[in-house]
Amino acid sequence: MSTISRVWTAIDFNKIGRQSDFLRLPYSSNMSAYGWIPTPLICIKNGTGPTILLTAGNHGDEYEGQIALIKLAQDIDPAEVNGRIIILPALNYPAVAAGQRVSPIDDGNLNRLFPGNANGSPTDMLAHYIDDVLFPITDVVIDLHSGGRSLEYLPLALARPGLTPEHRQAVRKLLNVFGAPIGVLTDGGGGGGATTLYAAAEQRGIPALTTELGGGATLSPEGLAIAERGVRRVLKHYGVVPEMKVEASSGCRLMESLSRDSAVYSPENGLFQPAAEVGEMVSEGQEAGRIYFYDDPMRPPIILNFTAPGMVSCRRFPTITARGDCLYNLMSDIR
Amino acid sequence: MSTISRVWTAIDFNKIGRQSDFLRLPYSSNMSAYGWIPTPLICIKNGTGPTILLTAGNHGDEYEGQIALIKLAQDIDPAEVNGRIIILPALNYPAVAAGQRVSPIDDGNLNRLFPGNANGSPTDMLAHYIDDVLFPITDVVIDLHSGGRSLEYLPLALARPGLTPEHRQAVRKLLNVFGAPIGVLTDGGGGGGATTLYAAAEQRGIPALTTELGGGATLSPEGLAIAERGVRRVLKHYGVVPEMKVEASSGCRLMESLSRDSAVYSPENGLFQPAAEVGEMVSEGQEAGRIYFYDDPMRPPIILNFTAPGMVSCRRFPTITARGDCLYNLMSDIR
Amino acid sequence: MSTISRVWTAIDFNKIGRQSDFLRLPYSSNMSAYGWIPTPLICIKNGTGPTILLTAGNHGDEYEGQIALIKLAQDIDPAEVNGRIIILPALNYPAVAAGQRVSPIDDGNLNRLFPGNANGSPTDMLAHYIDDVLFPITDVVIDLHSGGRSLEYLPLALARPGLTPEHRQAVRKLLNVFGAPIGVLTDGGGGGGATTLYAAAEQRGIPALTTELGGGATLSPEGLAIAERGVRRVLKHYGVVPEMKVEASSGCRLMESLSRDSAVYSPENGLFQPAAEVGEMVSEGQEAGRIYFYDDPMRPPIILNFTAPGMVSCRRFPTITARGDCLYNLMSDIR
Amino acid sequence: MSTISRVWTAIDFNKIGRQSDFLRLPYSSNMSAYGWIPTPLICIKNGTGPTILLTAGNHGDEYEGQIALIKLAQDIDPAEVNGRIIILPALNYPAVAAGQRVSPIDDGNLNRLFPGNANGSPTDMLAHYIDDVLFPITDVVIDLHSGGRSLEYLPLALARPGLTPEHRQAVRKLLNVFGAPIGVLTDGGGGGGATTLYAAAEQRGIPALTTELGGGATLSPEGLAIAERGVRRVLKHYGVVPEMKVEASSGCRLMESLSRDSAVYSPENGLFQPAAEVGEMVSEGQEAGRIYFYDDPMRPPIILNFTAPGMVSCRRFPTITARGDCLYNLMSDIR
Amino acid sequence: MSTISRVWTAIDFNKIGRQSDFLRLPYSSNMSAYGWIPTPLICIKNGTGPTILLTAGNHGDEYEGQIALIKLAQDIDPAEVNGRIIILPALNYPAVAAGQRVSPIDDGNLNRLFPGNANGSPTDMLAHYIDDVLFPITDVVIDLHSGGRSLEYLPLALARPGLTPEHRQAVRKLLNVFGAPIGVLTDGGGGGGATTLYAAAEQRGIPALTTELGGGATLSPEGLAIAERGVRRVLKHYGVVPEMKVEASSGCRLMESLSRDSAVYSPENGLFQPAAEVGEMVSEGQEAGRIYFYDDPMRPPIILNFTAPGMVSCRRFPTITARGDCLYNLMSDIR
Amino acid sequence: MSTISRVWTAIDFNKIGRQSDFLRLPYSSNMSAYGWIPTPLICIKNGTGPTILLTAGNHGDEYEGQIALIKLAQDIDPAEVNGRIIILPALNYPAVAAGQRVSPIDDGNLNRLFPGNANGSPTDMLAHYIDDVLFPITDVVIDLHSGGRSLEYLPLALARPGLTPEHRQAVRKLLNVFGAPIGVLTDGGGGGGATTLYAAAEQRGIPALTTELGGGATLSPEGLAIAERGVRRVLKHYGVVPEMKVEASSGCRLMESLSRDSAVYSPENGLFQPAAEVGEMVSEGQEAGRIYFYDDPMRPPIILNFTAPGMVSCRRFPTITARGDCLYNLMSDIR
Repeated sequence: MSTISRVWTAIDFNKIGRQSDFLRLPYSSNMSAYGWIPTPLICIKNGTGPTILLTAGNHGDEYEGQIALIKLAQDIDPAEVNGRIIILPALNYPAVAAGQRVSPIDDGNLNRLFPGNANGSPTDMLAHYIDDVLFPITDVVIDLHSGGRSLEYLPLALARPGLTPEHRQAVRKLLNVFGAPIGVLTDGGGGGGATTLYAAAEQRGIPALTTELGGGATLSPEGLAIAERGVRRVLKHYGVVPEMKVEASSGCRLMESLSRDSAVYSPENGLFQPAAEVGEMVSEGQEAGRIYFYDDPMRPPIILNFTAPGMVSCRRFPTITARGDCLYNLMSDIR
Repeated sequence: MSTISRVWTAIDFNKIGRQSDFLRLPYSSNMSAYGWIPTPLICIKNGTGPTILLTAGNHGDEYEGQIALIKLAQDIDPAEVNGRIIILPALNYPAVAAGQRVSPIDDGNLNRLFPGNANGSPTDMLAHYIDDVLFPITDVVIDLHSGGRSLEYLPLALARPGLTPEHRQAVRKLLNVFGAPIGVLTDGGGGGGATTLYAAAEQRGIPALTTELGGGATLSPEGLAIAERGVRRVLKHYGVVPEMKVEASSGCRLMESLSRDSAVYSPENGLFQPAAEVGEMVSEGQEAGRIYFYDDPMRPPIILNFTAPGMVSCRRFPTITARGDCLYNLMSDIR
Repeated sequence: MSTISRVWTAIDFNKIGRQSDFLRLPYSSNMSAYGWIPTPLICIKNGTGPTILLTAGNHGDEYEGQIALIKLAQDIDPAEVNGRIIILPALNYPAVAAGQRVSPIDDGNLNRLFPGNANGSPTDMLAHYIDDVLFPITDVVIDLHSGGRSLEYLPLALARPGLTPEHRQAVRKLLNVFGAPIGVLTDGGGGGGATTLYAAAEQRGIPALTTELGGGATLSPEGLAIAERGVRRVLKHYGVVPEMKVEASSGCRLMESLSRDSAVYSPENGLFQPAAEVGEMVSEGQEAGRIYFYDDPMRPPIILNFTAPGMVSCRRFPTITARGDCLYNLMSDIR
Repeated sequence: MSTISRVWTAIDFNKIGRQSDFLRLPYSSNMSAYGWIPTPLICIKNGTGPTILLTAGNHGDEYEGQIALIKLAQDIDPAEVNGRIIILPALNYPAVAAGQRVSPIDDGNLNRLFPGNANGSPTDMLAHYIDDVLFPITDVVIDLHSGGRSLEYLPLALARPGLTPEHRQAVRKLLNVFGAPIGVLTDGGGGGGATTLYAAAEQRGIPALTTELGGGATLSPEGLAIAERGVRRVLKHYGVVPEMKVEASSGCRLMESLSRDSAVYSPENGLFQPAAEVGEMVSEGQEAGRIYFYDDPMRPPIILNFTAPGMVSCRRFPTITARGDCLYNLMSDIR
Repeated sequence: MSTISRVWTAIDFNKIGRQSDFLRLPYSSNMSAYGWIPTPLICIKNGTGPTILLTAGNHGDEYEGQIALIKLAQDIDPAEVNGRIIILPALNYPAVAAGQRVSPIDDGNLNRLFPGNANGSPTDMLAHYIDDVLFPITDVVIDLHSGGRSLEYLPLALARPGLTPEHRQAVRKLLNVFGAPIGVLTDGGGGGGATTLYAAAEQRGIPALTTELGGGATLSPEGLAIAERGVRRVLKHYGVVPEMKVEASSGCRLMESLSRDSAVYSPENGLFQPAAEVGEMVSEGQEAGRIYFYDDPMRPPIILNFTAPGMVSCRRFPTITARGDCLYNLMSDIR
Repeated sequence: MSTISRVWTAIDFNKIGRQSDFLRLPYSSNMSAYGWIPTPLICIKNGTGPTILLTAGNHGDEYEGQIALIKLAQDIDPAEVNGRIIILPALNYPAVAAGQRVSPIDDGNLNRLFPGNANGSPTDMLAHYIDDVLFPITDVVIDLHSGGRSLEYLPLALARPGLTPEHRQAVRKLLNVFGAPIGVLTDGGGGGGATTLYAAAEQRGIPALTTELGGGATLSPEGLAIAERGVRRVLKHYGVVPEMKVEASSGCRLMESLSRDSAVYSPENGLFQPAAEVGEMVSEGQEAGRIYFYDDPMRPPIILNFTAPGMVSCRRFPTITARGDCLYNLMSDIR
């Protein structure tokens, strides 16, 4: 079987100006034998500068990035551009349209499926196209995430460390230019061991950054502002929109994510009453929260404690919880 | 067909002490021919005082009341009681267990189905039991709601006005005793014209109060505190737990809900970026928010404006929205 | 429980000019606590003439009427109107949006649910609103149907006979004015005994007509032309758009539908190869078609014969068939 | 709305001989606008004797009665008949075809929906037809049940006591003629308070009997034999097949079902290891079984005890159980 | 893991005579631990001639081929045969039984899954069996398709060009022998880049032909006749049924399919009113149709134009359409 | 992509004592972005003896092994152990919790998916973890199965023959030690050609045994006793619990499973009345049972006969059957 992507677009990535079309993912269904899934795609090109790939909606229920990129796509004047901006503001489109993390077509969690499969399900094909067609023409990758329905996240940027000393330096620079309040280096746990979009970009040697900007499937004004400012700083810094008006970055506090051993998971099905906030510095043994039991109201609550010190990077958002749900993740200043 | 409820319980409502069992709703399914749905029920009785009916989980994804009532059921010492406390902390149990507003068994929205039906679906039967069996032995009804997954609510209590001057006075007293920061009188729009639990209680002449205590299917510590204090004040004031330790109510700001004509609804499917907060006083013509389009990112956003002045009582919580979704409801100080 | 409709609209039916809004059916769901289902509604009013109610999309997969009414709503100049035109081109909106006969929300087949229920499911509430709110302000009803996915129909108009001699005369006049090639009087079998929209209109003494204009969930240019001409003739004839440009009606061939005893139903699950066309005059004993067996290819086909003479009004459209499917209905010239 | 049944059949109940057709329940669906659900129906008539109505498949996953009636319908020679035998061996046909208790079309549990509704869902319409059309032409009703997927049942017959002394005598006679090893009188708990087929027959003054003949959705040879012999004895005794070859009844042990207070219900979700057999005489306090926990294997099992003496009439069949499932019902010799 | 097919059959492909059994695809499900999916298979063998593989129901809702092959399987007298005819008239059997394009078991679109997977889902296993077991014993492949529910197709045959000059010649000969009015050479776009059955046959060097014979999930008498005549001509020409009675082929008009750049796709969700017919020669700029909006009836329709000249090979059949649906494909006479 | 398992556990397999935790299968879903599926796991280690891997719930609806292993996990005193016992009593946990054969998350039939996939669906990942992480630290594997919902099984143990003479001897010894009444050698047909857990263990040279202990998704006391005794004998014999109190094995009757050619499959959809019992010796031509037709009660039953002599190892349990269901499998004494 061929490993050439079956995905196509009416956009010519080498054409000057702003083009708006779709990634067209062939999807032959009961209602559409020769149809495709329309994933919105905007390409703005002018001059000879580098290519910045901007994505949001990798998980469909994460919104700060989606709105930031829609606004950006409308605001950029192609005449100001020196290089190329490829914008996919609703990346896993079926998931975005359904308002959920994963695609309702194939239950595909795009950010666990890289490097994808040219002959797989629609989400597999999408991952493959990004990895096999877009990454080779890209210089910088920014994939905007938030906590989604199940998590509340302290606003921050994340990156994997990079493969070489030069790559590492490029990653750190990107974090600083983007200028989220906190920049987190993560060493492989992203996606619980699966390959995420930004990990796949790292594999290709591209400086890549992702974010977490709020959560609960609602909109954080603060997170939206961080996304808008960060993306604009990157476009300005890398010379793609040299005259972009945006306040300068004051760098970021560099932290590292702690391992799953310091995470707190729900030990039972029940109702989660948290005792710590995102951004809070917690100590080992401090109460993390309680689990009450909707099916057994007279059962005393389980009291949960943190098993390591650190800062809360994210917390479960819904009160209802099941055994195995992540209630807290921690991070700490980099050593 | 008989109109006698088929629902039963092992609890004897006249027995002294604390009993914990279930409403047992007969549900004959493929996997359980003679089974019942176990809706947790606690009855605490002592002495001769009045009966307070306390419910939460009428909508399954509203949590402040559920946790407040679980804690109350565990904390009350039956020896302190003079009267009867009937507690249903997970009222529409299948909805609570599924973490959603309506029951997954019959798609039943309990708070739209009163006075229920003894021979209907499980949710119909539940409404009928509450109306036909519990209301006749109840003196005061408190049904604790929050915004749930789709709404963010300013914490407040609501009541219908009452049928007679005495009833009206009893309702106002109940609002004052409960002591939420705001007490809202609503004149019929609750449930969009359908009969809610507290409207059914009003029909039977019972003073009844409901609340909204947060939203987004997460837990508001402030909302939880209001629920806990309010319920305890009611138990103390009505003499059911005379020695209850709770700070006194400072009354509530009395407001009225404005009609649907002053509400803001989404005109399209898209992404909602709000421009006002719950609790904010807005003026006619003020920007309410914008709708961006995930399926058409280059389409300019629709700008929405308020059509009447008032205070925002609730706002849509998820960013994704569909035509017809309520984005804002307003209220105003009572005239 | 109240029997007042909970459905509302921003349209003022007494206002002069063209208004476009929605029937707003309250539907409190997991994703939208206070939302409504937006059923498009256009009202065009001027002068003092009668009110014509025009509907399509009663079954969601019948398209000639939907397009005819959308075009009409755009084409009519309110200044030309003397009276009122109420247009609902996508009547059971959830069914229309899903491209299927019945609503995916409650499996409601609107045309089997009249006179509806003010406190029922969304489709029940819609039927009730039409019957209880729209019919009392309406003088003539036209409900445009086609065969939908499962049937191919000879283009024709249908009406129930009317309750009084005056009513009967009004019905016959309406059929003649509309001017479909064939006008069928049906005496009660519509909807297999359930109450359809036009039967409910008859109960209120309103002259009412329905159509069948094609089928297979595709678009018949001929059926579309019949719908467009017929509706325009009615608007002109009843004086609502006196200067409407439309060719005059040449009346219609008056027929009556034959009973279910002359229908042909599938005796087995299989593949239906028809032997007669819609519009064909068939005789008793004539071959109607064959059933082949996809699960048992060596089984000889069952040969079906007509059991009565008549003209084929409709035929099953899909080749796949199940026992009990209607394969043919017949009609005959009126005696 | 009319209360006349919309269900029809090609069978003429007054015609001499054996006819085989269907109850034809109109069901207008996306795939079949004018179709009906084919519920097999056999009518065998000759002479002037009484009418016996025989049904099985009321719950779709109960098989002894289905096979017994299919064999009977094939075996009876109409020439031997003096009266009328109406046989519905797959009564709730969609449930039978799906191999489950309730109909997959409307989740209808037929035996909880009597007296039905002429304008309701397919299962409502079926109940209404039986009650409104078949019962008035019937002299004796036998509705053959078994335990189905969720229960194992001791083979027995059941009847409600009857409305008058004559009716009571007729019921007792019917139990004796049928000759199951045990005949149980039940005083209202059938269906947990809902109206079953045989309770609806009692309301019309008809002697009616039901059975339980095995369970687990498999076939009990013993239960099948009891069904076959019992039905044949009834046909012989009531003179409908006077020369029927069948061994004489030796009567039955008359028992009564004990109330739900003596039943054992599962207190938790888990795995049920029973400690008593169907047909076993148990004493108060005797161990009934244990619940192990698949989600918490180190949790000690819950030990359940009987709370009353009696004979086990039925026991839960699947090992997996949920809170509220009936694990045992008891009966005792009639006082 | 083994790459040996797990699919089996009771048919011995080397046995003389007509055998009818099934491809037996192991499918271990909740209801059938050791069961298989029964895909009907007929093998007719006699003498020493070549093997013709005839398939239909590759997509379950395409019927001309299914009926043509059922009739052929019944009509052929094994005594007339010199060679072997392998007939699979309901190839993706679960899709055929469901009346839909793809299998309801695994959502498998068989014609996108070649060369399949011996250890994959049922549809993967089926593709693998055809490719790995049947193709090696086959000399000519004919896979009969039609437009299915979503497309209307001009009746035609299609083939891929072949891998070598000899192969190309064999393919052209096969098109001429089959004798559809039009024979289309397609150069790789079949299946949007995925590997179809006939492309997999090409990879093995087998002359292979597919058809399109109608659409809309209904039966085209003309398409059925083309299928029946074409298959019979092939059987006669290749000497498998030398005395077959069938009128001679008059060859076919040789065309080529145009690329996706000349296709017309739906730009929005709405209602499609086409302006051209299948078989029509269209010119660049000619109106192709209009999209009306059921959710926004006052929005003017979008007018679509053809972007290249050509003959319409297929057109979308359902009126309802979504962005990305193929509305038209074009072809042109071969250069 | 990495082939390192993403599954983890809080258990340290080298730690002395009894630990109880879970296999934690990362599963990033709409409701739990960083959650895992909790598969219960108990590890009991002491001393230096071998490692025995004990599993049940590979298919979720097979219960004898689940209860036997839960009881064992609770009963073993770690002080008695010399070696390591790894117990997974609910192996495919989502299937166990759903009470069905396959996982409701991915429809994964664990016992058809070995050797699994580190980057596949949850069930793929589970198979991979067992094969890639647990097998390399294991000396003996026992995977306890029963017939589940669709089969009734004669209690027996099964093993594949082994790869080398030493391996074969080890397998035979294991069968004898376990001491089920019958020990069956199967030569590859397990899983219809797919790789089962015990076949994957064989591939790694580990002596491995599986069982069948009852069926129908209910609990066989006899099967439970065989499982409990067999596992205890193995623990004693291999020196892992040297002082285990258990009666000695009397070996087993060694048989071999017959091929699928001697199995009986259902030829049609209908109701299966069996004519032979599990454990019965049947002869060629003996009646196996009959198929009655719920959709066509007057159709004579199909009579099925055995096509080979042998002992019935398993029989279909549900009465309802579909074409292709296995009705009987046979075995015979080993030659």
